[in-house]
Amino acid sequence: MKPKNALYAQSGGVTAVINASAAGVIETARKHTNRIGKVYAGRDGIIGALTEDLIDTSREPASAISRLKTTPGGAFGSCRYKLKGIDENRAHYERLIEVFRAHDIGYFFYNGGNDSADTAWKISQVGEKLGYPLICVGIPKTVDNDLAITDNCPGFGSVAKYVATSIREASFDVASMSKTSTRVFVMEVMGRHAGWITAACGLAADPEGLRNRDGNFLSETGLKDAFGHSQLGGAGEIVAKLVKDRLKYKYHWALADYLQRSARHIASRVDVEQSYKLGAAAVKLALAGRNAVMPIIERVSNTPYRWRIAVAKLADIANKEKMMPRDFITEDGFHITRKCRTYLSPLIQGEAPPPYKNGLPDYVKLKNTPVPKKLPAFRL
Amino acid sequence: MKPKNALYAQSGGVTAVINASAAGVIETARKHTNRIGKVYAGRDGIIGALTEDLIDTSREPASAISRLKTTPGGAFGSCRYKLKGIDENRAHYERLIEVFRAHDIGYFFYNGGNDSADTAWKISQVGEKLGYPLICVGIPKTVDNDLAITDNCPGFGSVAKYVATSIREASFDVASMSKTSTRVFVMEVMGRHAGWITAACGLAADPEGLRNRDGNFLSETGLKDAFGHSQLGGAGEIVAKLVKDRLKYKYHWALADYLQRSARHIASRVDVEQSYKLGAAAVKLALAGRNAVMPIIERVSNTPYRWRIAVAKLADIANKEKMMPRDFITEDGFHITRKCRTYLSPLIQGEAPPPYKNGLPDYVKLKNTPVPKKLPAFRL
Repeated sequence: MKPKNALYAQSGGVTAVINASAAGVIETARKHTNRIGKVYAGRDGIIGALTEDLIDTSREPASAISRLKTTPGGAFGSCRYKLKGIDENRAHYERLIEVFRAHDIGYFFYNGGNDSADTAWKISQVGEKLGYPLICVGIPKTVDNDLAITDNCPGFGSVAKYVATSIREASFDVASMSKTSTRVFVMEVMGRHAGWITAACGLAADPEGLRNRDGNFLSETGLKDAFGHSQLGGAGEIVAKLVKDRLKYKYHWALADYLQRSARHIASRVDVEQSYKLGAAAVKLALAGRNAVMPIIERVSNTPYRWRIAVAKLADIANKEKMMPRDFITEDGFHITRKCRTYLSPLIQGEAPPPYKNGLPDYVKLKNTPVPKKLPAFRL
Repeated sequence: MKPKNALYAQSGGVTAVINASAAGVIETARKHTNRIGKVYAGRDGIIGALTEDLIDTSREPASAISRLKTTPGGAFGSCRYKLKGIDENRAHYERLIEVFRAHDIGYFFYNGGNDSADTAWKISQVGEKLGYPLICVGIPKTVDNDLAITDNCPGFGSVAKYVATSIREASFDVASMSKTSTRVFVMEVMGRHAGWITAACGLAADPEGLRNRDGNFLSETGLKDAFGHSQLGGAGEIVAKLVKDRLKYKYHWALADYLQRSARHIASRVDVEQSYKLGAAAVKLALAGRNAVMPIIERVSNTPYRWRIAVAKLADIANKEKMMPRDFITEDGFHITRKCRTYLSPLIQGEAPPPYKNGLPDYVKLKNTPVPKKLPAFRL
């Protein structure tokens, strides 16, 4: 029997390490050519699947696929596009199956967060309903670290390392200037309601680190960050101005924005490894015939940090949000607890720098050769 | 004859590599104990000298001084404080000489930008006027890269590497998201009127790099940056909103602020080396009896990049500002020319990562032991 092709798609906000998961999928699939034919990628995620805009990853040399492990962003493009339920939007599901059938796609790998787990789950159910055999496996990804069940989410560890490093570095700067100039530094970070990235800033205050000279900087940082995740965006400037108006301190503020989630140059090695292995595990699950599942991370021990891959049902991940536990935040609300530090610290361990060329990170741009279309156009 | 002590002070905005210059001063002085006694540092710069708040660097082990080479910020504190002319403010100069005399200071090293060169020059003239033998040597430092005469300024190369890396990384992110989400990314950078840091963002667009997928991102970046140095601060958000209101594109924007100048984790190796060697050169100039001078960088060749240390008079550096030449900017104003690239590129070459501990850069905090005071207090 001719092996079925696979379709891989990236979804939602991209990260410094989502391409490592892509590399895990593609490299693992290439080891099983008896079972998996070509790996196609949706250009701009699920939109590419719907519009039959597919990329033939088999046209990329092994060296280019390997370089995905050190390249940020989404190499095939991503999108924010959530499929409605099959009863509300049957045409989209029928179109997907039509595209899958036209290109002999038997495996679908969807790499994203909670919304994407929902989409993947819906698609996993559609094969049976529409009489098309399909194995659908999710691959976790979100800098927000808010997926249910999994111990942590690929993409988060690298952002955590970036924000903790940045706060530590800026703290050294502010400590130098505080005599005559800036007394408070505010940084606005991502992470939505969940607050995990905000918490990671607390790692900057290593007990041997920054408290000696002027311990209150980090508390102030905690204050602004605490606001930061209750108001999505714009909170940093508001808090910075409060600091000036109410406390009469000179401030500086930074808005890391996309820098934090694209900073592959300071990615966490643990994060890169987990992202790659989850991509590889998704392919192995598919080969084992597991539909409607997602490989996840299970923590085995803290010291030394050990983890392994477990399996969750997409239905149990979809649309759920894991918030910071209250006991990860100190009583006064200004800092993280030891328990939180124990959880976070392993996720930022190790460096995995990209190659540099001419003084800058040397990231790969794939050819992204299109697969010839076979179907009439489809309007979204 | 008992060797005279030295005073080293950091001035103005700190950088990722000003401590490398401090290490160059202290390590070189320690090799000449027959000529230079102790190296004191002004706590919070010249304010420490005026208030007799001195730090005894001899209390720091060699290992700690060596770690200054990989630690951002100003290890002894800095300040923004410009001395008026001696005729307007004789009391301050007399106080400085009183402090120097009390602590047997014969060498003064002032590490800063154009304002600091002015202060250093004034102090260099004061010894003779007030009958106190003093050798005063400036050490260049400014992320703005706007000092006269020197080919480039310590601190700038590392910021250039940071902003070019950040723009490149964010561009990979935006390129992934542009189908359904962000089309334009705006980043506000430092650099005052001179525009050198803005120009360095242009290095992100390696000819082999980012133009393939959606070439106009970097032009947009150029636009916002062009605004960025005509309006000091706040320009990023204004331009981002213009992009939304006039062009109807979804945008994201980042404000790198202190992150850019404290990002020791991605410092340029060339910058670190130059900073260290200029500190060392300042001590050698002092030992050679050269007063009122500053060691500077002279470019010998572009390919391969070669540079050497030359000497400028403080009087020729003070209060001058070196702007971006017009022929470093393309006709349309949106990008940098090949000539500009040829100038900038050598300055970001090479990596010089700090040591990491527990997943974060391991920066040194000095003991900063105070020198016992000998004089009555002085009110600034």
